[in-house]
Amino acid sequence: MSTKQRLDAIKQHLTIEQQYAKAVDPVESMNEERAKAAFNIRELTYLLDGSEKMTLLKERFMQEFERDPLFKMDDIHDITKDELRERTMEKFRSLIHHLSNEPVDIFKKRMEIVSLIDPGFWTRFGVHYGLFVGALQSNATSGQLGYWFQKGAISLSGMVGCFAMTELGHGSNVPGLETTAHFDEASDQFIIHTPTLTATKWWIGGAAHSATHAAVFAQLFVKGKNYGTKCFIVPLRDPKTYNLLPGVNIGDIGKKMGRDGIDNGWIQFTHVRIPRSYMLMKHAKVSRTGSVKEPKLQQLTYGALLQGRVAMVVDSGNVSKKALSIAIRYAAIRRQFSNSNTNIETKLIDYPIHQRRLMPLMAQTFAMLFTGSEMTSMYNKMMGRLENAKPEDTDLGEVLEMLKETHATSAGLKAFCTWSCLNTIEACRQACGGHGYSAYTGLAGMYQDFAVQCTWEGDNTILTLQLGRYLISSFREAIKGKKLSPGVGYLNNLDSLIGVRCDAKDAESILEPHIILEGWQVVCANVVRNAASEFEECIKQGLSIDDAYEQCSQSRLYAAKLHSYGYLFNRFLDGVSKVEGSLKAVLMDVCLLYGFYTIEENAGAFLQYGYFSPTQIEFVRLKTNELCKSVRDQAIPLVDSFNLSDYVINSPLGRADGNVYVHYFEQVKRSNPQNPHPYFNRLIKPLIERDMNDDIVDEEGGLEEDEEEDDDE
Amino acid sequence: MSTKQRLDAIKQHLTIEQQYAKAVDPVESMNEERAKAAFNIRELTYLLDGSEKMTLLKERFMQEFERDPLFKMDDIHDITKDELRERTMEKFRSLIHHLSNEPVDIFKKRMEIVSLIDPGFWTRFGVHYGLFVGALQSNATSGQLGYWFQKGAISLSGMVGCFAMTELGHGSNVPGLETTAHFDEASDQFIIHTPTLTATKWWIGGAAHSATHAAVFAQLFVKGKNYGTKCFIVPLRDPKTYNLLPGVNIGDIGKKMGRDGIDNGWIQFTHVRIPRSYMLMKHAKVSRTGSVKEPKLQQLTYGALLQGRVAMVVDSGNVSKKALSIAIRYAAIRRQFSNSNTNIETKLIDYPIHQRRLMPLMAQTFAMLFTGSEMTSMYNKMMGRLENAKPEDTDLGEVLEMLKETHATSAGLKAFCTWSCLNTIEACRQACGGHGYSAYTGLAGMYQDFAVQCTWEGDNTILTLQLGRYLISSFREAIKGKKLSPGVGYLNNLDSLIGVRCDAKDAESILEPHIILEGWQVVCANVVRNAASEFEECIKQGLSIDDAYEQCSQSRLYAAKLHSYGYLFNRFLDGVSKVEGSLKAVLMDVCLLYGFYTIEENAGAFLQYGYFSPTQIEFVRLKTNELCKSVRDQAIPLVDSFNLSDYVINSPLGRADGNVYVHYFEQVKRSNPQNPHPYFNRLIKPLIERDMNDDIVDEEGGLEEDEEEDDDE
Repeated sequence: MSTKQRLDAIKQHLTIEQQYAKAVDPVESMNEERAKAAFNIRELTYLLDGSEKMTLLKERFMQEFERDPLFKMDDIHDITKDELRERTMEKFRSLIHHLSNEPVDIFKKRMEIVSLIDPGFWTRFGVHYGLFVGALQSNATSGQLGYWFQKGAISLSGMVGCFAMTELGHGSNVPGLETTAHFDEASDQFIIHTPTLTATKWWIGGAAHSATHAAVFAQLFVKGKNYGTKCFIVPLRDPKTYNLLPGVNIGDIGKKMGRDGIDNGWIQFTHVRIPRSYMLMKHAKVSRTGSVKEPKLQQLTYGALLQGRVAMVVDSGNVSKKALSIAIRYAAIRRQFSNSNTNIETKLIDYPIHQRRLMPLMAQTFAMLFTGSEMTSMYNKMMGRLENAKPEDTDLGEVLEMLKETHATSAGLKAFCTWSCLNTIEACRQACGGHGYSAYTGLAGMYQDFAVQCTWEGDNTILTLQLGRYLISSFREAIKGKKLSPGVGYLNNLDSLIGVRCDAKDAESILEPHIILEGWQVVCANVVRNAASEFEECIKQGLSIDDAYEQCSQSRLYAAKLHSYGYLFNRFLDGVSKVEGSLKAVLMDVCLLYGFYTIEENAGAFLQYGYFSPTQIEFVRLKTNELCKSVRDQAIPLVDSFNLSDYVINSPLGRADGNVYVHYFEQVKRSNPQNPHPYFNRLIKPLIERDMNDDIVDEEGGLEEDEEEDDDE
Repeated sequence: MSTKQRLDAIKQHLTIEQQYAKAVDPVESMNEERAKAAFNIRELTYLLDGSEKMTLLKERFMQEFERDPLFKMDDIHDITKDELRERTMEKFRSLIHHLSNEPVDIFKKRMEIVSLIDPGFWTRFGVHYGLFVGALQSNATSGQLGYWFQKGAISLSGMVGCFAMTELGHGSNVPGLETTAHFDEASDQFIIHTPTLTATKWWIGGAAHSATHAAVFAQLFVKGKNYGTKCFIVPLRDPKTYNLLPGVNIGDIGKKMGRDGIDNGWIQFTHVRIPRSYMLMKHAKVSRTGSVKEPKLQQLTYGALLQGRVAMVVDSGNVSKKALSIAIRYAAIRRQFSNSNTNIETKLIDYPIHQRRLMPLMAQTFAMLFTGSEMTSMYNKMMGRLENAKPEDTDLGEVLEMLKETHATSAGLKAFCTWSCLNTIEACRQACGGHGYSAYTGLAGMYQDFAVQCTWEGDNTILTLQLGRYLISSFREAIKGKKLSPGVGYLNNLDSLIGVRCDAKDAESILEPHIILEGWQVVCANVVRNAASEFEECIKQGLSIDDAYEQCSQSRLYAAKLHSYGYLFNRFLDGVSKVEGSLKAVLMDVCLLYGFYTIEENAGAFLQYGYFSPTQIEFVRLKTNELCKSVRDQAIPLVDSFNLSDYVINSPLGRADGNVYVHYFEQVKRSNPQNPHPYFNRLIKPLIERDMNDDIVDEEGGLEEDEEEDDDE
């Protein structure tokens, strides 16, 4: 064939090519979606962030991190665990710079952004400032606080702290920790000791390489008597050399599912002596002569522990924002299967089933965001009261009530929201099809990083059960006539709730927020009542209170889960009721979608207690479909209102401009340069050029026979 | 203080220690559980494996891999992606050795074990033997098959294949692929070309480094006319040097969520010419003069594509076995919170809520295992008929019916079982608390490796919808009086199912397999009927068939999901009905648990269609609790019957002997030797010894003022 012939052939097929390809520019697809906005996006951003000022602040933070070379993130998926840890350590310097230069509440907002950019660093930094310094603040006397602050606990000079609570054999059960702290009166010292393998401190963030000191939780023994778990500051390393101190044995916990930037470690103490004053004595005290004074109200010490849980409720909303930005933007530009009328492939987001996969999760994200703000103010209000509370105060009962409510609410919401967020991430990942499995598209790593939130600071199942316990005890108090706090207020109205049925006659009249509100109250009143009767039944049978709670744990868990659904809907509706105009219209759709979707998901309960009839449940299904469709129209503007920059989202699939394929391909090429073959000569060549006869083993014959055959050839 | 005083102090606290520690030897806890066996464990293993012979075979394989140095697995979490890929390549040699020496059906059993040991290698090996060779077997003429086999496709000598179907912009929609194959009559060649960025072949396993040839799916163009997607063998690399051939551009896809042992790549073709005979022409044919003969029955080509799906149903059961072995064994030795009566902490597995977390998943695993065997025989039977089928056969209709059923069933089950398995892995991971987040405990990596099964070989949502479509069309045929195949046979009995209610009066009488069986049939008949009416309604409104199916996709998905629950229960019950004695008793409990648990999970549907009343649903809940408790008693013997060796389980938490903490600690130490500090001098020293004044920026003052202050000092 001549060159001309070849060129003609190529030319011919190029022409056909152009007829064939019916690709649509993804940027155009994205613009099309953005043009659908029926509300002021910027206004919604201000609402979600709290104010215009806060939005501007967040935008400044995102920009500052983007141009900070220490916060380079686009190669994060390709560096080793060891490189990642070093890079994580490097970032300390940058954050301390900001910490010294801005007020704490502003710095906290900065940390919210950090959690979205690099959750591993967020934790590693938080171990010192949140857990270690937090332990000092909750447990140290003011004199002790001054001592440690002066030693460098705040400025991070001369010392880095870690938080040594968990042990290899003991997690959730803090009173069951095995590490001991014996008071040795002769020397005025405590002896910190790890008596068994299972007493080894485990998972301690920062212990492997960063920390010089640990806040160690250990059983206090004085004169042979055990006073329970207390907190001690134990030096681990010489700050000048980072050599381990005598009696301290530390190792690296190594590879984890995610957050590999944290140097988690294990610690074993062998008769390590510390001065008596290194026990934090804000609550329990041990005197020079070994007399022990126990705190009057142990509960007052728990407030600060809730801070982490509250932060995780907020974080769940924020991380869901990021996951949905990726999945929804991708769904707006990805096309698949031709429509029968046109030759253009259909956008994923136009498939009813894809709307069903993502729109309810978006609604849930809004519910979590409103709930996060509410939870934060509940916590701040409680802490305001708690910090000034003294055992002799007359209004102490009220303060303890607030603490109880905040404790139970934050426990339940931490569990509910972290589970919801983890499921959202995975649903978003799967909604991106095969590309969701690539590390560079971000959702895989997001899952791996986030997964631990369901376990730490209280295992989700245990926390949900705690909320369930609070619900049962609230129920029992309500029966006795006590007026409950608003979150469980519906339990004061049992008579007007049990047995109530919805009277909506058609699909249109069911579309009312007050119906959803009432429905959840009816259902929750019923499931809490059931759990409480199961509990009473166990008590009647002679079980102890604790055993009775164990026996009814399945009902307790169920009640707590349904209560949380209703609680989130309430917070969302509260939030929507405060806005006006076009913003209200779109948010109300999203809010109704959340309500109906969650009812559909829990249809069994609504039918069980008769609030909805089977026909009404069909209306709910129908309306959920319709709401998915109408929210879908505003999906890109809604995602835009989350206002996360391309740098923060760090996923080519989530590009704001929609130019997904170009950026994805570039990212993959940048991360994997076309180098010479890494193992052809060593591994492949010997394999594919091997002598075939080597493969065949003649099971019948032996070596001699083979040799004879060889002779024949 | 004198040395004697110190020693006395230490001695004193050692004594107290021994009073304090109430640890129970985990090995003892495990033995205690094992002693509870109420059935012959070995017999159950034979049943699950198929026969005693098969169990012995599997045991031999596990032992062989354990002692094969190439299959060393305990450091797998700590090697880099590049090291992992090399190690994966090395294993080829070992497997080819076995492949040459054992019958194919035995080798397939070996591969099932490989999937449990190293799923990344399983895939990489399967890309050549399953996908590439499979593509030849389904699409090549016998002459072509002989040619490629002789070139080394079976012996893996001189060539390694990959399977190039997916493109950057096109996954599930194979007819929409953009890569083109133009026939150039002058040269008697095809020109393979990648016309756009989105046409880049993507995710191609083995392309980055291993493959010399690709089975490329491309749009066939002859004389300007497009004949749809066909399969072409395209050489990629020179087997002598592994240099890319002219016109071929290949890169590495890089880091993924899991299975990093696979060298996935992207490929771009620029006018690459191949001989006409490299188009696989078993079905469509292109002659020397460019006349195209299309296959009479395109469907007959699809059979082999189902093999992967069937394997994934089986794999889901097997991987669930592994995950549950870890979580249940850990739950049998892990203790937490003291019981109020004794001072011994309670085993996790004794908590009702923990039983609720794991026992239903164990029941589901058994259901998947029985379903996997059934699916395999359905597939084999169908393929037996299909391979001999010719377009002119008189029984062709029957064969096509079998194909349709196998296609829909395998689609639905692949989706249902891979989702169930992924959820099981994550639930097991969370049930191990914090230790589930460690890479060394195995569940994190298992999740990351398994997650892709929900997407590849058909996205799970799309596959579930395919089953839904089959259910609707079966329903419409049943209405017309056609007798359906057994799996959907209940649709032939609509009149006797719709409206049926369970008449059990108390919790005891509800505990009957026939009630569960009937309940699922009633519910499934209803949801399929609803989906079908929704579909009919759309057709009446003038929608095309395809658009009508899209419109009712939510009902279709729902129907398919519920149908799958019922289907699995049926398979499980079938399996149990074939056994006798003590084995039957324990399996029946597990089977009832599966039935009740899934009814509880879908209580909404059972109430919606009135099969159960709210009171009966309460009976179901009660009985589910009781069944969890009774299955819990046999949990360790049941897990033992899975018969996976410690080597295969590869998790210290899943140790058969229960000696969890010792092995976990040793694993962590072995993987993370206590080396000198990696970055103290470079990063930490400058941070904690820095001059504090550097941190403070005086916003008011300028540089001059600072200098003056310096002068003062």
